Amino acid sequence: QHTWAAEKFAMKPSDPCKRLVLFYHDILYQEGDDLANATSASATNHTKLGGDFQFGRLVIFDDPVTLDRNLHSTPVAHAQGFYFYDKKTDFNAWMTYTLVFNSTHYKGTLNIMGADLMGVKTRDLSVVGGTGDFFMARGIATIMTDAVEGIKYFLLKMDIKLYECY
Amino acid sequence: QHTWAAEKFAMKPSDPCKRLVLFYHDILYQEGDDLANATSASATNHTKLGGDFQFGRLVIFDDPVTLDRNLHSTPVAHAQGFYFYDKKTDFNAWMTYTLVFNSTHYKGTLNIMGADLMGVKTRDLSVVGGTGDFFMARGIATIMTDAVEGIKYFLLKMDIKLYECY
Amino acid sequence: QHTWAAEKFAMKPSDPCKRLVLFYHDILYQEGDDLANATSASATNHTKLGGDFQFGRLVIFDDPVTLDRNLHSTPVAHAQGFYFYDKKTDFNAWMTYTLVFNSTHYKGTLNIMGADLMGVKTRDLSVVGGTGDFFMARGIATIMTDAVEGIKYFLLKMDIKLYECY
Repeated sequence: QHTWAAEKFAMKPSDPCKRLVLFYHDILYQEGDDLANATSASATNHTKLGGDFQFGRLVIFDDPVTLDRNLHSTPVAHAQGFYFYDKKTDFNAWMTYTLVFNSTHYKGTLNIMGADLMGVKTRDLSVVGGTGDFFMARGIATIMTDAVEGIKYFLLKMDIKLYECY
Repeated sequence: QHTWAAEKFAMKPSDPCKRLVLFYHDILYQEGDDLANATSASATNHTKLGGDFQFGRLVIFDDPVTLDRNLHSTPVAHAQGFYFYDKKTDFNAWMTYTLVFNSTHYKGTLNIMGADLMGVKTRDLSVVGGTGDFFMARGIATIMTDAVEGIKYFLLKMDIKLYECY
Repeated sequence: QHTWAAEKFAMKPSDPCKRLVLFYHDILYQEGDDLANATSASATNHTKLGGDFQFGRLVIFDDPVTLDRNLHSTPVAHAQGFYFYDKKTDFNAWMTYTLVFNSTHYKGTLNIMGADLMGVKTRDLSVVGGTGDFFMARGIATIMTDAVEGIKYFLLKMDIKLYECY
């Protein structure tokens, strides 16, 4: 006998059961900045292990997520979570966040985590769970840096492919 | 041919393969408090992005989990993890924790993460894994604020529904 | 009809579809240390809830992972993530990290999280996702403290068993 859950799993990696392409905008608050624009702030400073590459800086964010590159487009979700820099010899980060959807299209969340290997063009995070319209989902979020201004601002393209859909 | 794993998956969202209702008590240490009672402490303070709503405050906890609302009931588990506040305009948090069970009923852990949208009556976190009696489990933890005193104390009701049980 | 995904799931807990035994070395930077050797640094100090057991200290790491106990063996992966101490009455931690593989053997990542119950000989973390050669993997990482010097250095043996392999 067959199960309800397994029936909706992907047949192969090239064939996700759901796919979303989204853009994530992070504007880090720094001393003297306009608070109104900022979407993230450092909870900790970099450590002695690396000022140049910010080793140890942990940033908490509530970032708008849009359907295109335009920061001023109406957000379709918010990414709530944190990242931190974790390499002595280069920029490299680790991040986890929840995509919170509350639109006419989608209501629910996707929970994501993984290494953000900033030196690599595309890198894969794990989608480890979902709720609401994304009930129990799993998959891969491929991220790509689309624009960056130091540690002050970055724009990530997220190509989210779900391979387990209930 | 059929697999052992998939046979125990839930047939539909209304029908979890295991369900637990638990209460989580968080008592935040603040300057001058009785250390003995506290179950959590701030590892970071709020940032400039929001003192009113504590944006950036990260709290590490080892909280008792009981079968009823009574803080003084014998814990059936401990919730070990952290939460942080992450919204400029309202109270909102993100959390991840492990429920550590070590009783006659259950031995093992459940690993949980997600957005704690405090303004919403019930919100769903993802149960992304489990060990011991909860080997490889996945599901949803629906949380509801049962009592709250500022940021000092809160009581969450957790309705944990597992949909993948091995 | 049957699915591609489920076919490769483990048939029983005693029978993982993939297994890796690895060693994880953490060298915490402390004031006055040689920066060159350190692989981790405290982003926060311990809180008032426990200097003796470091409650609240959060450590960010980029740790070498080797095939044997020797710190100087060529790393086969790096563990990027963080841990924090979270108990008032004993050493106990919580950790999450990504194993980043980039060798001739494996390319890809495994995402891991859970309670590190340091007082217990072996403890299980959840492998909640994977990418690349570990596409969509799930499993259990059993860790064991192999050597320890205060909070300055520790060596963990990780026995990683995957039960869902795509």
